[in-house]
Parts: sequence; C-alpha cells; structure tokens
Amino acid sequence: MDIRTLSQAAKQASIKLAAVTTEQKNSALAAIAAALRERAQEIIAANVKDLEVAGENDLAAPLLKRLKFDQGKIDGVIAGIESLIQLPDPVGHTMTATELDQGLELFKVSCPIGVIGVIFESRPDALVQISTLCLKSGNGVLLKGGSEAQNTNRILADVITAATESADIPAGWLQLLETRAEVGEMLKMDEFIDLIIPRGSNEFVKYIMDNSNIPVLGHADGICHVYIDAEADIDMAVRVAVDSKTQYVAVCNAAETLLVHESIAAAFLPALKSGLEQHSVDVRGCSKTVDIIGCRPAEEQDWKTEYLDYILSVKVVDDIDAAIDHINRYGSGHTDVIVTGNRDHAVHFMNLVDSGNVFWNCSTRFSDGFRYGLGAEVGISTNKIHARGPVGLEGLLIYKWKLIGQGHIVADYSCEKTFTHTALDKKCGH
Amino acid sequence: MDIRTLSQAAKQASIKLAAVTTEQKNSALAAIAAALRERAQEIIAANVKDLEVAGENDLAAPLLKRLKFDQGKIDGVIAGIESLIQLPDPVGHTMTATELDQGLELFKVSCPIGVIGVIFESRPDALVQISTLCLKSGNGVLLKGGSEAQNTNRILADVITAATESADIPAGWLQLLETRAEVGEMLKMDEFIDLIIPRGSNEFVKYIMDNSNIPVLGHADGICHVYIDAEADIDMAVRVAVDSKTQYVAVCNAAETLLVHESIAAAFLPALKSGLEQHSVDVRGCSKTVDIIGCRPAEEQDWKTEYLDYILSVKVVDDIDAAIDHINRYGSGHTDVIVTGNRDHAVHFMNLVDSGNVFWNCSTRFSDGFRYGLGAEVGISTNKIHARGPVGLEGLLIYKWKLIGQGHIVADYSCEKTFTHTALDKKCGH
Repeated sequence: MDIRTLSQAAKQASIKLAAVTTEQKNSALAAIAAALRERAQEIIAANVKDLEVAGENDLAAPLLKRLKFDQGKIDGVIAGIESLIQLPDPVGHTMTATELDQGLELFKVSCPIGVIGVIFESRPDALVQISTLCLKSGNGVLLKGGSEAQNTNRILADVITAATESADIPAGWLQLLETRAEVGEMLKMDEFIDLIIPRGSNEFVKYIMDNSNIPVLGHADGICHVYIDAEADIDMAVRVAVDSKTQYVAVCNAAETLLVHESIAAAFLPALKSGLEQHSVDVRGCSKTVDIIGCRPAEEQDWKTEYLDYILSVKVVDDIDAAIDHINRYGSGHTDVIVTGNRDHAVHFMNLVDSGNVFWNCSTRFSDGFRYGLGAEVGISTNKIHARGPVGLEGLLIYKWKLIGQGHIVADYSCEKTFTHTALDKKCGH
Repeated sequence: MDIRTLSQAAKQASIKLAAVTTEQKNSALAAIAAALRERAQEIIAANVKDLEVAGENDLAAPLLKRLKFDQGKIDGVIAGIESLIQLPDPVGHTMTATELDQGLELFKVSCPIGVIGVIFESRPDALVQISTLCLKSGNGVLLKGGSEAQNTNRILADVITAATESADIPAGWLQLLETRAEVGEMLKMDEFIDLIIPRGSNEFVKYIMDNSNIPVLGHADGICHVYIDAEADIDMAVRVAVDSKTQYVAVCNAAETLLVHESIAAAFLPALKSGLEQHSVDVRGCSKTVDIIGCRPAEEQDWKTEYLDYILSVKVVDDIDAAIDHINRYGSGHTDVIVTGNRDHAVHFMNLVDSGNVFWNCSTRFSDGFRYGLGAEVGISTNKIHARGPVGLEGLLIYKWKLIGQGHIVADYSCEKTFTHTALDKKCGH
C-alpha cells in the first residue's frame, strides 16, 4: 500500500477512535501489555536478528545499545503501559461551560488531534511508548522507525495491532512505514496527518520542520544557559552550573553556555573552574574569562553550538539585560537559568527570557516530563504555538466546541433576544 | 526600513512588552482611546482622501463601505477599547502549580506569543481592533493593511504609536507595512514573527498558509452543514436550516449544504422548500432530492463549494454515518449541525464530526466569538493545533514553565532524593 492509502486508513480509523470509551481504551492497553508479555521470546528473537545485521554493518556502540530490546526493555515498556492505564482519560474533559441563553449551552471539550506522524530512530521502545500514548489519547498514528530496527518494529507493530483489534479498537489506527523514501511522502500528507513528532538528530528535526506544512512538535537545538547574577551565592552557583553541564552531557537540557555578571566574575570563575575540573570539562571563554581563569578563548561559533559534550562556553556580561539579550539571541528557547538571591532580578529574568522553561536557582536538567510529573512525556517542544517545554498527553489533544440548543436560531438575537453568557458549573454530558 | 529591520524591532520591543504591568497596558489602551477621540477629525480627513482615490478607481460598493471610517466607526472602536480595558489581563495567569520537592516549585504561566503578523483587507477598524488586542495580551504586531486604506492606516498607526509611547510602552512594538511586496517578505520572517493572522478572501488565506513556515491562525473555506436526522422535529429542522442558510449569507458560518436522512426526506424537503422560497434561495439537490422537490440537480462540485450566497446544496443520505462521512470528506472543519430528538444520535454526531464547532438543535450562525461570549474575537480558526473555532484573547497566548528552587540539582535525584509531585494551591508570585 502507498503512503496515501495508509494515511487515509489511519485518518478514517482515527475518526472512530475519537469516540471510543475510556474503558475500551484501557482494556486495549491491558491487552497490549499482555501480548507483549506472552510474545516476549518472539520479540527478542526478531531483535536479535536486527542486532546481528547491525553488527555486520559495524553500527556504533551507542546505536547498538539503543537498538537492543531485551526482557528488561520489554518489562520497562509494560510498566509504562500499566501506569498509562492509571492516568485519567484526557479526552472529553470539559474545559469551559457557558450558558449563552436559556436552553442554549456551550461546552469547550478536549478531543484527539487526529492522526500523529511519528518518526523515530533506532529505539524500539519508542514505538511502543508513542503508540500507546496515541491510543490513550484517541489518536491514529503513523510510525516510521529506523531501518536497522526493521524486524523488531514489525513484530511490535503486529503485536499491538493484533491486541487492539481483539479489543475492538477501529482497525487501521496504527500504520507502520518502513522505507526512508516514505518519510518524504509522509511530510506531504497534510490532508490526513495533523501533527508530526520527530525524534532524532537536530539536523533531522530541522529538515522536517523546513519541509512540511504539517505542524511539528519537537525541538532541534537545545542551547541552554546558566546566568550567574551579581547577587548569587557562589557555592550554589557552582553546584547549579556543574550539575547543569555535567549531570548528563548528551541531552538537550544540558547547559552549553554560562554567563556571569562582571562584578562577581573574579570570585566565581575560579570556583567554577575547580568544580568543572573534577568532570574534565573543557572551558572556552570570552576575553575577560580568559584573563581570570586562563582557559582557551571562545569564538563566535561557540555561542551557537550545542556541544552535547564536556565543553562549556563562558562569557562575562555587563549586567542582567546583557545576559537576557545574549540568551534571546543565541539560545534555542529551551531552558535557561538564573542563579541569584535577588527576587526582582529573578522575576525580570524569567519574564524577559523568551524560552519554554525559565528557572531560578536550580539546574537546567530538571526540564523533563518525568521530573515535571506530567505522567507521560510526548516530547519537548520549543514551539511557541500549541504546546511548549516538556509536553505530556495534552500535547496530543485539541478541543472542539459543542453547542446544544432546542431549535435556537440567530435571527431571534438581532432584536428581541439577548445573550446571557453565564458560566455554568457543569460538565458536558454529551 | 526593510521588513527584516522592522520585524526585528517588533521582536525586541515584544520581549519587554511581555513584562509590562496590567495597569500600564490599560493606561496605554485608555491613552489610545483618548487620542482617537481627540484626533477624530484628522482621521476622518485622511479617510476621505482614501475614499476619493477609491472612488476614482471605481472600487466596488461593498469595499467602499468597508473602507469608510467615519465618526460612527471611531466611536465603535473606542467602545471596543473600553471593553478590552475591563477584561482581565490574560498574561501571568498560573495554569498549574506543582511542588516537585520541598522548596522546588513548578508553575505553568501564560505569556504572550511574541510578534503577531496581521494581514487585513480594507477595513481600517481591523487595524485598531487587532493592535489593541495584541497590546492587551503583550504581543508586538506587524500590520499590513490594504493599499486602498493607506492614508487612514497611516494616521491610525501614528495615533496608536504616539499614545502608547507616551504611556511608556516599549517603542517599536507596532509596525505598519505598506506595500503588497512586503507580504511575501513578511511570510519569510519566521525568525521574528511567531504567528500570522490573515483576514481576507479564502484564496488569500490559502496562499498564506501554503507559503509560510510561520503558523497561521485562520480559516480558508467555511463549508458548514446542517444534518436533519430521522428523528428530527420537522418545524425545528426547517427553522434551524433556514436560519443557518439565510440569516446572513456572506459569512463563513452560513450553511452551504443540507443533509437529510432518507426516512424523513419526503416529509421534510417540501417544508424546507417553502421556508427557503421566502428568502429566494436556489436549491441544488441530489437525484433523490430532485425527485421529491423538483429542484435543479447538484454536481460533484456543489458539495465542495462555499457559495456565500442564496444557494443551498441538498443531499439525501442513507443514515447518520453517511452524513458524518460526507461532512468529514467535503467539510472544512468549521461548523456542523445535527437536528434530532435522539440524544444518542446527537452524541455520536458531535463526537465523530471532525470540526471545530459541532452543534445540536441550533443554527450554524451561532459560531462566533461575540455569541460565544469570548469578550474579544481574534479570529476563527480551522486549525487543529493551538486554537480552534472562534478564538478570543487566549489565541494570542502561550505559556512558559517557571521552576523556582533553592539551589536544587538533578544529581541528588539519581539516588537519595525523590520527587513529591504534589499539586499546589497557589499562584506564581514571580
């Protein structure tokens, strides 16, 4: 089947899936968990095939690690499904209720977006996570995984499809795409696909954002900053800066640039240097930083670089507004931190830094759906429309307006009748 | 100045505007109202110039009517500003508050989107409305009006800019673009413009959606349906259908197609016919409709056409699911109505029709920000991301996550500490 046919099938199923009850969706999720448990040996055998091919093709060790889908990983995704079953159904939630006039009631009610296109790299656990999130939120899903995980992805899609069909979920709600060429086709399916969630390298996400009319939920770069204010506690500043840089360097919420107020730089930077040396971090500094701690000089390109490594660029700034300007210019709108004892400075920073996550006196590394307690993480978005920052299930939802009348017509409101516009304390029962 | 420079200036001002207090924004709005009142004669004189040029160029009468900006229209926009001042500030609203751990508090707080690009046709009142909505919501704005309103738009932009600068609103927050060529440039400014709101013909909106990476809030077609179910009350069905079609034909929420269940068609269609004849509506029907009421036959193209005129296409359907399929296939996701006495049918219809507004027993014409009681209408959106249906001030807002700690670092949570994730009953004070 071609992509158009697959997309259209997912769209048609998604319409019906939008009206499936919570109980039915939860039964289907339980059926998926049971099927994964029962067919674990089959899944592991398929994954071993992928690992063998990958070994022959000399896949890099980190990729091999992500590709591996063993009993531990299966137990992990099953635990994820079990906690997803416990979450409240995000569909059908009454967001506002208003009486427009006697017997004419307006409800704003959450509903699924429709069909989500997901493009992910080698990790097969991503396939299970994202498709169960889509199911819980009533969305159809088109999945495109990495070709190196082809056998694993096929059997996982088969397990999920069979389990949900037996649980009366509309057939066709999940479609697996397999070839690289299909990605390009998928990006054109704006008639059937409502949202794309790419999970992959920055270049890949950027490519998708630039090449589709379909809205994208995701982020390319994560260039996060820590700004040490004139009124920072130096011990706290070092702790927060070192954690932000080194706690896990390969992720988007790790800090890449540190900014420090001129008046505290001479006291802070030597303390920072010794803190970073324990983690062998390579520092690249502006000329003032070089004067104080004698590190390698930074170039213009450093302020724009997401190292994802044990490297930190450091700049001394004249004041808090220079720090804010630097962040708004070079940052990626992801996560930025101020360390200060001065509340007014913190408020000013958090209001003027134009990023999804703005923190005061804590590490950039807290920027994460699990740490935020969102229950489930769909992705991290640096968009300024729809959903921003770590995005939970609500990122897969939109709303519709339901208006319930008793034969009300607008002509009556051109003279004799007027609107009451009273907030109602009730849920939409329809 | 070129578009890039103007856009960048608006972006820089918008950063500061995001942190301006409610009092200051309301004072600025009051200053705009006062300046419009004081400089009314100057504004009317500029508008007379535009009207003269338009007269020489033989502009069509409806366009001339929209272009006219007299004392009545000025009083109208001033009244709009006064009611906008009364609305609560949508910025800084705490949407969720969560304790992540002792002393580590997370707040999801509403904030402006940034810079809104607005493209509107001849109506100069749109310039005042949209720029004051942007000001209230803390957004910078780039305005592109029709060239036929050039003199009026210039003086209005000048009046607003002068009034807001005297009220200490960051300079540069409002920029006026003047030439048609600038629209193309504007669509490329995704670095500085966060959202585009086009107000114009369907073709124009479609052009913009297809030619920009910037998210668009708006709608092209409004192909709205009324479905008369087997269990409809015939009198009510006629009233709702006639109002939906004829109460005001030139607007996006007028009905274009009527669908009727086969079992009620013979009783309903003659009653509909006589109701429509009072408004001289031309009916184009499917073959079954032609058999019953002898109207002109509809062609495939009719189901896809937004007439915006006294024309209605009518189709007899086998059952409710055929009606839903027709609407999801030919509709534009705007507003669709079911008339029925059967609650289960209504719920089924409202859950499966994939439109922003789904109504039961009332006219499509209620689909409107004023009638919904939104306070102010930014536009009507058929998007399925961000904002949908009639959109009030909340369509100009997004949120940011503010996390407030006391030096908290993530390394502590890898073993000894755990998250508490407790909902807090407090607002973000920062």
